[in-house]
Amino acid sequence: MAIAPEAEHPVKAFGWAARDEAGLLSPFNFSRRATGDDDVRFKVLYCGICHSDLHNVKNDWGFSKYPLVPGHEIVGEVTEVGSKVKKFKVGDKVGVGCMVGACHSCENCTNDLENYCPKLILTYCSTYYDGTATYGGYSDHMIANERYIVRFPDNMPLDSGAPLLCAGITVYSPLKYYGLAEPGKHVGIVGLGGLGHVAVKFAKAFGAKVTVISTSPSKKDEALKHLGADSFIVSRDQDQLQAASGTLDGIIDTVSAVHPIVPLIGLLKTNGKLVLVGAPEKPLELVAFSLIIGRKQIGGSGIGGMKETQEMIDFAAKHNIAAEIEIISMDYINSAMERLAKGDVRYRFVIDIGKSLEATKPHA
Amino acid sequence: MAIAPEAEHPVKAFGWAARDEAGLLSPFNFSRRATGDDDVRFKVLYCGICHSDLHNVKNDWGFSKYPLVPGHEIVGEVTEVGSKVKKFKVGDKVGVGCMVGACHSCENCTNDLENYCPKLILTYCSTYYDGTATYGGYSDHMIANERYIVRFPDNMPLDSGAPLLCAGITVYSPLKYYGLAEPGKHVGIVGLGGLGHVAVKFAKAFGAKVTVISTSPSKKDEALKHLGADSFIVSRDQDQLQAASGTLDGIIDTVSAVHPIVPLIGLLKTNGKLVLVGAPEKPLELVAFSLIIGRKQIGGSGIGGMKETQEMIDFAAKHNIAAEIEIISMDYINSAMERLAKGDVRYRFVIDIGKSLEATKPHA
Repeated sequence: MAIAPEAEHPVKAFGWAARDEAGLLSPFNFSRRATGDDDVRFKVLYCGICHSDLHNVKNDWGFSKYPLVPGHEIVGEVTEVGSKVKKFKVGDKVGVGCMVGACHSCENCTNDLENYCPKLILTYCSTYYDGTATYGGYSDHMIANERYIVRFPDNMPLDSGAPLLCAGITVYSPLKYYGLAEPGKHVGIVGLGGLGHVAVKFAKAFGAKVTVISTSPSKKDEALKHLGADSFIVSRDQDQLQAASGTLDGIIDTVSAVHPIVPLIGLLKTNGKLVLVGAPEKPLELVAFSLIIGRKQIGGSGIGGMKETQEMIDFAAKHNIAAEIEIISMDYINSAMERLAKGDVRYRFVIDIGKSLEATKPHA
Repeated sequence: MAIAPEAEHPVKAFGWAARDEAGLLSPFNFSRRATGDDDVRFKVLYCGICHSDLHNVKNDWGFSKYPLVPGHEIVGEVTEVGSKVKKFKVGDKVGVGCMVGACHSCENCTNDLENYCPKLILTYCSTYYDGTATYGGYSDHMIANERYIVRFPDNMPLDSGAPLLCAGITVYSPLKYYGLAEPGKHVGIVGLGGLGHVAVKFAKAFGAKVTVISTSPSKKDEALKHLGADSFIVSRDQDQLQAASGTLDGIIDTVSAVHPIVPLIGLLKTNGKLVLVGAPEKPLELVAFSLIIGRKQIGGSGIGGMKETQEMIDFAAKHNIAAEIEIISMDYINSAMERLAKGDVRYRFVIDIGKSLEATKPHA
């Protein structure tokens, strides 16, 4: 017999959930666990809307479970800590990103790569150690083991900093791992959306020369003047591609729609690396010869471990990096999702949970 | 006005050439240049038959020029050296592999990666600095700039050593570059043909644990008992693939036919690398998610630079590594090509040029 979400745990919680594959969100009463010894509980103030939230509420990937409370770019203020928590205290500004648990004993976990643990527990739409469903940040409060809590430095804005917890680490980690986070490197960023615009900022802060590659010529001014990119290539312009052939040390490809990758590989120098962080629903076409000539590589990367996530937030704070955001209220969420599906956002929606969630509570 | 191949250069040469896309080879009179200051000339004793010779005689890749003398696994004995040649003398046992020239000024060339130079001059079917066609090793003698001459150590057999000049370096270089040439690494070798069987030997000599992955269950005994592999996976057996999931540090994929790569990626550990050294004619299907989960990579690799080629031959000599070969006479070449097209060779044909070419000369 299934226990109702409100009765599963001792602490009442309120948020917005999708109820089925239509993906419409609406107010939702549920519950969260009591504060364990290693847990940190915090009041949610802001939550970013990631494109994967949209995929998940509509079950595009086939593993959604309902009711589904999305949100994995969650920031707020600590309200309670467990008896063994050492790193956080009440009042701290903190965040939770894409994950809340892992096995902590495999090779990945012991190398600070919980993100690649086969038993990774996602922030929502996953099953926690105790067998209950995990619920995300479109909710009044959050709780997580302190290992999964990120400290927000004083000068990091909570609203525009929230998207760094997913979009930020997703591009920061491969820039570092694939050797692109160095002065003098020439880095391409494909796609100027939620991930891409943050990738430009990080790559510039690392001292790299940055070329934005986009299907939309209209984004050129934005890329060069506002975000500080050094050059811009329209990805369908053969002349521009030809002129830039063999010039890039690496590319972070943030596009999650099916797109041609061979022209991107052509932009790489010998030993260059094309890193995919977006996951198109259908296979991409890979011409082996394009990798053999010039010993090029295609790599993947998925978010980052918790140690690196904290490092990323600290680096961002130091270099004044945050997302460009449009703040919305909770009751605008379904309209925001519609706009996100059309790419109509510059560059990330962030829900002002702190100011707008309470008002959506149904009268008792 | 085109000059006849016999009259282009001062030194008479004789070999076998394909005349058109039918790919049939027959005796061919041509000429080679006089010995320049930096050139080494040698009498050809053996020449391996690479699968790309077959592709080239039939113009499968669309850039063949006829008459075409194939052969880029060429070994023999030095007969003449130029005035500035320092490393070789008459009587030395030497070889020439896939290339005979490059720009020598680009970043690749200055990093001993002539093989990735955009102006690479291939041993045959290419255009030399002087504008004349290059002709390969199915011929009585060969000439090349000393930079492209490989010394054969005394204990390296000339016949079974010949295939190392292409097949050997093609697998040795990626084992080294992709960090797989270390004791304790677990390496997969896909395809047990001309390249694969040599890859097993090199990987074992580096101290790696080796798993052969093949579509043919019949190759299991050969792989384990004769070549010394540690384990064997039938690539179409889902249970075997599942059991080996996440166990390999890297894979050298030697298959040049279109084949599924996602199951191979599934065999890799976190940060594992699938290296393609065969070039299927059609694109492969790449599911981005398979790389993102576990930060995996697909890389390419094409032969190796001259410095590394010499290192490879020296390493092979030290570890008694050579190819498994079937020696044929020159007049068997068209039958050998037919058998090669069907995969009917164990594992490499080598032409005994020294003993069998002269007899095929048309009477003057």
